[in-house]
Parts: sequence; structure tokens; C-alpha cells
Amino acid sequence: MPQYTPPVRDTRFVLEHVVGLPAYSNVPGFGAATPDTVEAVLEEGGRFVAEVLFPLNQIGDEQGCTRHADGSVTTPDGFKDAYRRFVESGWGTLSAPEAFGGQAMPHVVSTAFQEYMISANMAFAMYPGLAHGAIAALVVKGSPEQQEKYLPQMVSGEWGGTMNLTEPQCGTDLGLIRTRAVPNDDGSYAITGTKIFISAGEHDLTDNIIHLVLAKTPGAPDSSKGISLFVVPKVMVNDDGTLGARNAVSCGSIEHKMGIHGNSTCVMNYDGATGWLVGEEMKGLAAMFIMMNAARLGVGLQGLGIAETAYQNAVHYARDRRQGRALAGPAEPDEKADTLFVHPDVRRMLMEGKAWTEGLRALCLWGALQVDLEHRAVDEADRQMAADLIGLLTPVIKGVGTDKGYEIATNAQQVYGGHGYIREWGMEQYVRDARIAQIYEGTNGVQAMDLVGRKLAQNGGRAIQAFFKLVATEIAAAKADATTADLATRLERALGEQQAATMWFMANGMKNPDHVGAGAVSYMHLTGLVATGLMWLRMAVAATRLKADGEGDAAFLDAKQVTARFFAERILPEAGALRRKIEGGADAVMALPPEMFLAA
Amino acid sequence: MPQYTPPVRDTRFVLEHVVGLPAYSNVPGFGAATPDTVEAVLEEGGRFVAEVLFPLNQIGDEQGCTRHADGSVTTPDGFKDAYRRFVESGWGTLSAPEAFGGQAMPHVVSTAFQEYMISANMAFAMYPGLAHGAIAALVVKGSPEQQEKYLPQMVSGEWGGTMNLTEPQCGTDLGLIRTRAVPNDDGSYAITGTKIFISAGEHDLTDNIIHLVLAKTPGAPDSSKGISLFVVPKVMVNDDGTLGARNAVSCGSIEHKMGIHGNSTCVMNYDGATGWLVGEEMKGLAAMFIMMNAARLGVGLQGLGIAETAYQNAVHYARDRRQGRALAGPAEPDEKADTLFVHPDVRRMLMEGKAWTEGLRALCLWGALQVDLEHRAVDEADRQMAADLIGLLTPVIKGVGTDKGYEIATNAQQVYGGHGYIREWGMEQYVRDARIAQIYEGTNGVQAMDLVGRKLAQNGGRAIQAFFKLVATEIAAAKADATTADLATRLERALGEQQAATMWFMANGMKNPDHVGAGAVSYMHLTGLVATGLMWLRMAVAATRLKADGEGDAAFLDAKQVTARFFAERILPEAGALRRKIEGGADAVMALPPEMFLAA
Repeated sequence: MPQYTPPVRDTRFVLEHVVGLPAYSNVPGFGAATPDTVEAVLEEGGRFVAEVLFPLNQIGDEQGCTRHADGSVTTPDGFKDAYRRFVESGWGTLSAPEAFGGQAMPHVVSTAFQEYMISANMAFAMYPGLAHGAIAALVVKGSPEQQEKYLPQMVSGEWGGTMNLTEPQCGTDLGLIRTRAVPNDDGSYAITGTKIFISAGEHDLTDNIIHLVLAKTPGAPDSSKGISLFVVPKVMVNDDGTLGARNAVSCGSIEHKMGIHGNSTCVMNYDGATGWLVGEEMKGLAAMFIMMNAARLGVGLQGLGIAETAYQNAVHYARDRRQGRALAGPAEPDEKADTLFVHPDVRRMLMEGKAWTEGLRALCLWGALQVDLEHRAVDEADRQMAADLIGLLTPVIKGVGTDKGYEIATNAQQVYGGHGYIREWGMEQYVRDARIAQIYEGTNGVQAMDLVGRKLAQNGGRAIQAFFKLVATEIAAAKADATTADLATRLERALGEQQAATMWFMANGMKNPDHVGAGAVSYMHLTGLVATGLMWLRMAVAATRLKADGEGDAAFLDAKQVTARFFAERILPEAGALRRKIEGGADAVMALPPEMFLAA
Repeated sequence: MPQYTPPVRDTRFVLEHVVGLPAYSNVPGFGAATPDTVEAVLEEGGRFVAEVLFPLNQIGDEQGCTRHADGSVTTPDGFKDAYRRFVESGWGTLSAPEAFGGQAMPHVVSTAFQEYMISANMAFAMYPGLAHGAIAALVVKGSPEQQEKYLPQMVSGEWGGTMNLTEPQCGTDLGLIRTRAVPNDDGSYAITGTKIFISAGEHDLTDNIIHLVLAKTPGAPDSSKGISLFVVPKVMVNDDGTLGARNAVSCGSIEHKMGIHGNSTCVMNYDGATGWLVGEEMKGLAAMFIMMNAARLGVGLQGLGIAETAYQNAVHYARDRRQGRALAGPAEPDEKADTLFVHPDVRRMLMEGKAWTEGLRALCLWGALQVDLEHRAVDEADRQMAADLIGLLTPVIKGVGTDKGYEIATNAQQVYGGHGYIREWGMEQYVRDARIAQIYEGTNGVQAMDLVGRKLAQNGGRAIQAFFKLVATEIAAAKADATTADLATRLERALGEQQAATMWFMANGMKNPDHVGAGAVSYMHLTGLVATGLMWLRMAVAATRLKADGEGDAAFLDAKQVTARFFAERILPEAGALRRKIEGGADAVMALPPEMFLAA
């Protein structure tokens, strides 16, 4: 019963007026992203996910994956055929390098498509999604032989790819890894150990799965400094590219999870499996971060993607469902009741959904642009600026995107009242699916620590200063126009709260680092408010300009202005409370001895 | 794998020092609630739920209920035997009237026990829990014959009870009810219609189920003014009390839900079922509110109950799980990693859990005291004051209790990292179970409208003025003591925000009621902050006094002081943001036409 329409009009607005795609036509690869091409990708890609993937979303949740006695795993009905069509139509290759069969489009374009795919079917989207992280690591760290052997089939989607980090005793703390890699005589390694929570670890969608596995070599330090990265194919690949013998890696079991049932989350057993070192020995953590940073942006996008579908359905339900009367008197006296839209608190929930989904879409796509510029911008200064900004904002996009994704999905379910709690209506699945994104690829608490513990201080605070300057500059410009001055002024206030909180960290973090840790999540959300506020400022400025020029769809631009105002008046005020929580410091947070937490 | 220990020590502290039970020994019925009796109820009741009900919680979630072809419903393995033991030990009769076989204890005592029962097994607790609402309606509105016929067996738990309000086309808006009650010649009525979302509508725990059903009589107004309440037994009861023929009411299907799988949520079909009017014709709404207000307080308690168990398990996990190192350097250098307790953000989540669960426990029990005093206090003025306070705070306890319950359960799951998402660990069940409490018995948006649209203005604002005076008086006293002055000052600031928001409603609600509706949920949470802040002030004052007197467990009292400080420094700052959101008003909330919500 749920429905989904790819928000192509909004994506195009964001790409043109927030990301400013037309301004980057000089960047290598961006020339191919002409307005027509981008429109075709969005329209046709959107149609594909809506027609092929979305109808499988509830089936995937109900059926889940099945592991058989021989260790093989079957995906839900329809997944295999849909995956074949996905590969054939080349949707997975949009931004991959041409050298490996990709279309070399900007990352920002493929990110727009990925949002749609997640909205349509998050569990399905994870199969190719996880392969992207593995591809990214091999592109940067793989040897030419490894790239030639694995990448073309991984890029095309003919083979899957995974990231094997977590073990039963270690999630965040990868120094605790026990998986061992012992050198063989031929330059390969024998990998032995158990990995857990491996998304898409085993399935029936592809003939081969290329696992990237963190393990320790003999004598390596028993810390994160001793970790190396290995490529371990499920099925050995012969020199001529044909498939050989089965490798000694297998799925021991699949997890029964709260959501994303359509994706197989596996316990993977490595029993002396043959693998090859990727990059240098004991430099696995750096390689892992290549996968991880790509994955974190993808997970932030999951927050947006799920929120979008949940929000759309809440809007439809609020339009159809009649219950109660408007506070000022019947809006439709001829009907027995008004629609849910007359109720201010329903509107409030929907406006929050609209303000955050459109704001996060702008932020995710603008973030994706920074990934492109980091690698492709012509000037070194532009590359550095983009690297600084996306380094700073990756934990924010992941943490805030997924916290808001869960909140918006929960509110969308709330709009349905009791029906939202019933499985067949589909809304509770969005909440269950959204929940994992706050946890995996580094919990949101870990994201917040990455932001305040690493990214803030890197290079003498260069990134955060650049961010402050960027926001302040656009505020100053927007204050000059009466239609955007109020939003700009309110954003300036939120920016001031963030700057004050940053100063507080600097003044207090040295004497006690827990003062920074205790405010980390609040600071992440404060940064998210300012960054998303900047996106709304850009959208409001663009709407004002387009209306003045008589361009664009007036109703659409009006809606942008109203929603920007809502963000300013009803969301930005959270900034002050976040700052005051941060300034509360660590004392009350850390004072209680662990044994006194239970009052029983 | 989850565990649960009834927080008896904290309950006793709250009953003695926040509720002030010893001061009410002159109130009829309170004399029986001696410290020894209360301790026995808490200790033995806690043991019962921990040993008998808690072990069935995960089983209930996994198995759910099964409807058979004949319309009968089987509860999960073990529920029937546990229910028999529950009835035999009399745990359901604590506060029921002696005239119908109850123990006539104060409601506040049975509420303390009910929290434990919910913590142990929410789905199970709903079977007797729903009967309580039906009992309350019959006690107040039933005829002596109806009371004699049904109440003793309902009080003992021998028979179940339900509330039948919702229909497919109507949830909140009961004016849309279509179920018809046509008078028979013998004074009974023939009830025909379909009710949905009927918790415990059909099951195998009891020989009979007494349904209380809202329906419309012929010619009644087609609005909520035309609703009457009927009692409809599943099995007819003969005049001698024996069971007769099966009535024409049956379970058409059971819902597949996000959570509370152990409770049977039924579609109930009434096919000319025989029922009897309860109270006066077309006065059903008033009778319904008797059930509803009891149920709303019970649902607020569900938020607390689930949060408590989830929180306890997060504390255990944080103590056991080793991952990473303290920011200032290893806390336990001899171990390979420190426990999760060293991480400030984990502490932050746990402290929020502690501050809210202990604060909500105090608020729920203090609220339950008001229910007692409303009915039993000797002075009319005391009865009125209690009725005013609980009328005002019922929607706050329901709405804030359940919003925080979901948030705390979610954070507790977050502490587990990836394991929190896996079903066998049990944490995701708490999130799924907690979710319904925000929705049923009136969504939390409906609670907020009850608060701002009805309760604030009733009797010229008498209740909110009494609340403000109560909080201000205790603040003034606490400011005189240096150890509580900071908390009192911060609570005074939050109270000031609430008073300003109240004034804003008064100044702006008349010209546009949507200004009140748009801020309703924020105002509910603002009230919850102040009310829970008052509870923390009382606990801090008591801890200070007891320590000065050398009484009580010093470590326990220290923990109260630390947690009170945490509430003051890290939670109360939210008040300012809530006020500013309220003062944003309805303009940006209501400006967008419904057709412009979708950007696609």
C-alpha cells in the first residue's frame, strides 16, 4: 500500500541552485553531466527504482533472507531478477571510473540516484551499496593486478563486494581484531577468523563476492596499528578471469534483525581462506577509512532516503484520512470530518519532515560535490577546501542525517495513528529500517567523537574556520535582501551558538577531554542545524531570485520560501539549547560511579 | 539474555520522600498502606513479575498470538499458566474496592506494582491492564445489578475486560462511530458493528471477557454527543452467576503489529450481540473518559516501565563490554580495552536514562497519589486541588512519559551498538514495544491538544495557576539551601519559560486557535520538563536533608544529587528552545497548501 515518487523536481532544483552544478563544467568529468543527461538519469533511474525495486520492499521485509544447510543464502522473491535488471541497465556504474567500465559521471549525480534507490528499497540498495565501498578501496589501494582482476566485474555489478571489519569482541575498537593472516609461500595469505554483521556477506545475486577483510599478520602490533587489509574472493578467480575453486570462506549464520530483513547480514567464517594484501602491510586502517568514509556518506543518505518515503506516505495519508475538525471551525462543512491537514500538530510533523528531507537532500548532494571536487577540482586550493569541508561534515551528514531519518520516519508513522503500528500499512518498516543507520558504520556517538575529537582540531582548525567563513559570507549577502534577511539573521544566531560552543571546547577541552566528549553529540547536531540552515538559506535566496526574474514554478518556489521560514522559526531555535547543554560540561555526566547507575 | 530487577529501593524512596505517603495516613484507605505492607507488596510483587512474567517476554514477542478458524485466540506459551498464578496471588486486586473483592489499597501502591509488571512484560501486563479501565467505568457508571454481575470476577481477574472504541473510519474522532445499538424488548440492546485495535479482545486466559462498547442508539445525533456505552459479555452470564450461551461477538482477525506481539489486538465483530446500557443513553463519552483517563495514566506508566528495563540492560552491557579507551588515557591499563562506561557519550545516554526514569517514576507515582486524593481526601479543597492537578497532568504523563520511554529505549539499544539491532539480544523489542504507547489511547498530539485546548483554560485556568504556585513555592524553599539552590534557580528559569509560553497562548490563541495547536506538543514537553524538574527538586531536597541527618544510604543519596544536577544542567536547558518554538506560532506551520507538501 505505500507509494513512492522520486522527487526529481527537487533534486534538479538542488543540483542547479544549491550545488550549482552548471558552475563546475570545467571540472574534469563534469562536462558529461549536462542538464539533459542529469535529467535523463534522474527520470529514468527514478522510474527504474519506483517500478522495479519499490514493489519488492515489503516482500523483502516479510520474507527476509534464508540460509540453507550448505551455507548458501537465498534473497527474497524477486530480488534476483531485479538485481539482474539493475546490472543490465548499468545503474550501478554511473560514477565509477571509465577504466573499469564505469560511466565516470560526477559522484553528485550518482548520489542523487542512490537516494532514490534507498527510498525505494533500502535493503536491496545495500547489495550494490556495500560493493561501492569495496570498489573505492581497491581503486585507491589495490595493485594494478588486483584492479584488473576484480574491478570490472565489481563495477558492473556482476560480482558483489563486502567490507569485513567487525568481530564478536570488537566493533568500534578495531585494535581488538583477532582475525589472523599468515603468509603462504606464493605471496598470498591464509586468513582465519570470524567476522560478524557482514552486510551482503552471502547471497544468490552474483556468481562471486569479493570480500575486503581486516586482519593481523604475524608479529603485528596488537592494536589498530597492526591491521592489514586483504582481498578475499568467495570463488577464486583464474588468471583468464574465469571462476575457479571455492575459497575457504563461508556464511556461518544470518542474523535476525529489527529491520532491513531483505539484506543478508552474515556471520562469516574464514578458515584459512586465501587472500591477498591490499596496499601496505599494517596500513589497513587507512585503507579501511577510504571504504568507511564513502560508506558513512552513503549511510547519511539512507537516513534521507527512508525519511523521504515515510514522509511522502504521511502526506498522502493526511490528505485522505478525515478525522476531527479544524480548530477555528469546519474546513469542509459538507464532509463528516476534515482531513488530518487541518490539525496544526499534524502539519507541524509534516513540515518538519519537509524541512529536514529537503534540507538533508541539499546537504547530501552538496557534500557529494565536495567529494568530487576533492579529487577532481583543477586548483589545489579548491581540492583542499573541498577535502576540508567534506572531512568535517562526513560525520555530521552520517549522524544528523540518520538521527533525523529515524525521527522523521517515526513522525510519519505517528501521522497514521494506530494504523501506523500495523505491519501491512508499511510505515513501521521504515522506522525499523531507519534505525540501523544510526548504529552501523560507526554509531552516531562515534561520528560525533570523530567530529569534535579529530576533525575540529585537524590542521589547526582550518576546516571549521573555513566552514564558519562560508556560512558567515552567505549570511551577510542574504541579510541585504528583505525576503531572506530574517532567515539569515536567525541562521547567524545559530552560527553564533556554534562558534561559542567551539570556543568553549577550546577553552575547556585541554584540561579535561571529557568536556568535549560529553558535548559531542550536541555539537554534531548544532553543526547539522547550521549546515542544513545554510542549505535552506541557499534555497531561499534562489527562490527569491527566480521569482524576481519570473522564472521557475511559482508554487514550488513559494513552498521553498515557506519551508525555509519554518526551518528558521521552528527548527533553528534548538541551537541555543544544544549550546547550553555543551556548556554544561562533563562534570554531571561523569560524576556517578558505574555501580551507582542502578537504583534497584 | 536481558535481565530485570524491580527498582524497589527507588520506589520506596519516592513513596516516602516525593509522594510523602506517611503524611496521608488520615486519608481513608491509606491507613492500610503501612511501610511494612508497602514493602511487602513491592518486594513480593517485584519477585513475582521478575520470576514469572519477565521470562515470558521474549517468548511472547517471538510467538505472538494465534487466531484459529473458530475465532478463538491462543496466547504465547506460558502466558496462560502465568495468568493463573497472577490471579491466584491476587496481584490484580490491590487497589480495587473491597465491595467487589479488592484490597482497597491506595492507587499509588498498585501503580508502583504495575510499573514493575510492565517492565517485566508489557504485552502480558496489558491483559489485566485493559480490564482495569473497564472496571473503573463499571464502578462509576454501572448499575448495582451490573456491578454485582460482572465486577467481582473482573476484579479477581477470573474474567477479562476490554474497551471498544475505535472503528476503521474513526480513531480520535469518536463522532464518526457507526456501531449501532438497537433496543430489544427486554431492556437489552442488539449491538452491530466492527471495532478494531481491541487489545485483549479475544484470548485463552479467561473463561469470559466483558467488553465495554461505544455505539449509537437509533435517532441519536451523528456526533460524539450521540454515543452510548454498553456492556457486552463474550459469554452470557446467568442470574446465578454461571456462564450461559455464547454472545454474538467474535474476533474476526488479529493484527500483525510492530510490537507487543504477546497481546492479542483484535478486530471484533458485533453481529447483533446482546448488550446493556451502562449509565445514561448518549452519555457514553463521559463514561468513556473514565476508562480513558485511567488508561492514559497507565500508558504513561508503560513509557516508564519499558524505559526502566531497557535502561537497566544498557547499564549492564556498558559495564561488561570493553571497547576503546578513556579520552584522558586508559582507565584499566591491564585490560585490552576500557568498559563503555569511560566514554562520555555513553554516560550521557545512560544519565539521560537515569534522570528520566527516576524522574518519571516520581511523576507517575505523585500523579497516582492525586487520583487517590481526588476521590478520598477528607477536605473538599484537597479533592479539588488533586483533581485539578491530575486533570492537567494526565496528558503530560501520557505524552511525555511515552515520548521519553521511546527515546530512552532507543538510546539503550544504541549503547549496544550493532548487537542492539539483533533480535536475540532483546533490546530492539523494547523499542518496538515502547512505540505503541505514543500512539494509542489518544496519540501524543491528541494529548497535547487536551492539555492546551481543554485543561489550560478550564475553570479560568485554575489548574495551571495551582501548578505554577506549587512549583514556585518549592523553588523558593529550595533556593534557601546552598546544595539545592542551583537546581532551584534553573528550574525557576524553566518555569519562567513555561509561564511566558502560557502567556503567549493567552495573547494569541483568541485571534487564531492554530497558534495554540501549533505549539501544543512543545508546550506538553515544556510542562513535562517543569513537572519532572519539580520531582527532581523534591528528591534533591530529600537527599540533602537525609544526608544532613545521617539517615539513609549515602551512596544512593549521592547518586540522587548527581542525577538531579544532570537533569538541571543537561536536560532543563531544552525549555528555552521549546518556548521559542511555541512563540514561532502557526504561520509557517499552516501556510503551505496541502498540495504543495510533495516536492516530487
